[in-house]
Amino acid sequence: MTERTVSFYFDYISPYVYFAWPELRKITARHGCTLAPVPVLFAGLLTAQGNIGPAEIPAKRVYVFRDAQRLARDLDRPFRCPPSHPFRPLLPLRVTSAVERPEPRAQVIDALLDAVWGRGRAIDSPETIAVALAGTGLDSQDLVEKAGAPETKAALRDQTDAAVARGVFGVPSMMVGEELFWGFDSLAHLDRHLAGEPAYDEAELQRWREVPATAGRKRDNLENLSLLRD
Amino acid sequence: MTERTVSFYFDYISPYVYFAWPELRKITARHGCTLAPVPVLFAGLLTAQGNIGPAEIPAKRVYVFRDAQRLARDLDRPFRCPPSHPFRPLLPLRVTSAVERPEPRAQVIDALLDAVWGRGRAIDSPETIAVALAGTGLDSQDLVEKAGAPETKAALRDQTDAAVARGVFGVPSMMVGEELFWGFDSLAHLDRHLAGEPAYDEAELQRWREVPATAGRKRDNLENLSLLRD
Repeated sequence: MTERTVSFYFDYISPYVYFAWPELRKITARHGCTLAPVPVLFAGLLTAQGNIGPAEIPAKRVYVFRDAQRLARDLDRPFRCPPSHPFRPLLPLRVTSAVERPEPRAQVIDALLDAVWGRGRAIDSPETIAVALAGTGLDSQDLVEKAGAPETKAALRDQTDAAVARGVFGVPSMMVGEELFWGFDSLAHLDRHLAGEPAYDEAELQRWREVPATAGRKRDNLENLSLLRD
Repeated sequence: MTERTVSFYFDYISPYVYFAWPELRKITARHGCTLAPVPVLFAGLLTAQGNIGPAEIPAKRVYVFRDAQRLARDLDRPFRCPPSHPFRPLLPLRVTSAVERPEPRAQVIDALLDAVWGRGRAIDSPETIAVALAGTGLDSQDLVEKAGAPETKAALRDQTDAAVARGVFGVPSMMVGEELFWGFDSLAHLDRHLAGEPAYDEAELQRWREVPATAGRKRDNLENLSLLRD
């Protein structure tokens, strides 16, 4: 059996990424899979697809934090609110992208996720990243320098574009071949998929792709909707 | 102990409502709670909050169906693609609103959800609603007539507005007092809440409400974003 790879598309901006990451390491280890974490800019996914993020809908933004508090209790993990949110995730994403070897990259992800969501610290500046990486033995100054290089910036753009091309629309997302799993709540399904579950009804999925819409909102003018006013 | 009510905000448009409804009946029965199903127009929630629905993002739309296939397998329930989607849910929502007594209302919900997502049938016309309700003993013609009355139309509008006012942003949503649970995946948390779990850290949630954003997209001009181009 050839070794399978689970791609993990993530952005530090999401608390669900913090919860998913260690669970995912356990799941992939159990199934003997390679885990390939790929930093992407969540805001870039949203913009590419004309989507709105949870932090952009006030009621949903509050709900996300309560839901994360519930998950933290389920998993018995510390959970703190960072000093600002949404914050600019470009520097930590690029620092992570600049680390190519899998083991130190995983260490960086561990350290940055623990800092921002486990301890509620900022990770959006060279100084805060240095604090977060202090225990790892990695050279934070060198990584921040690499993060600013044109090729690192291009890598993050390319990773984000490639994720969109694969059908990724949110974070965390996991892909095994063409099979997509989105969100912390999909980890149990990923686990079952890796264990070798029977195939799903692809013909029915294809029908879904093709069924006509008989209702919809006008995207160019939401004021015109008035579905309720007929 | 006073009897608690679980409000269930739903729209037939969502397959997750189909999966959640019978589970919710079991959960509320187990805890001796009243289950109060409240029809709302999902498109109305989206518009009120400037949100985008899963069916409006092509990659997410496909994912939802695959995820629903996985849930159907978990729960050992039939699951079929309806003849059109999104369809106009106003008539079935109003028919449901027109039934005031809890038991027949639950019967209507059972029958319409089974028709649209269990059997993949249309439920957006008087004829298809008559077929779906045939086994219930309810007078479908009478209900369709009531659905067209101004007070029934007003009721659906008011229910949708009231849901928005309570912080509901999606379906299915469940509320117990001020506590919100969104989506099929929150049912385990609802169950634990009803069983009487310890309180969460409200001060930390309050901090989250108040932390400043240090990054964001311009809602009025998404083209201007270019977070990736700095």
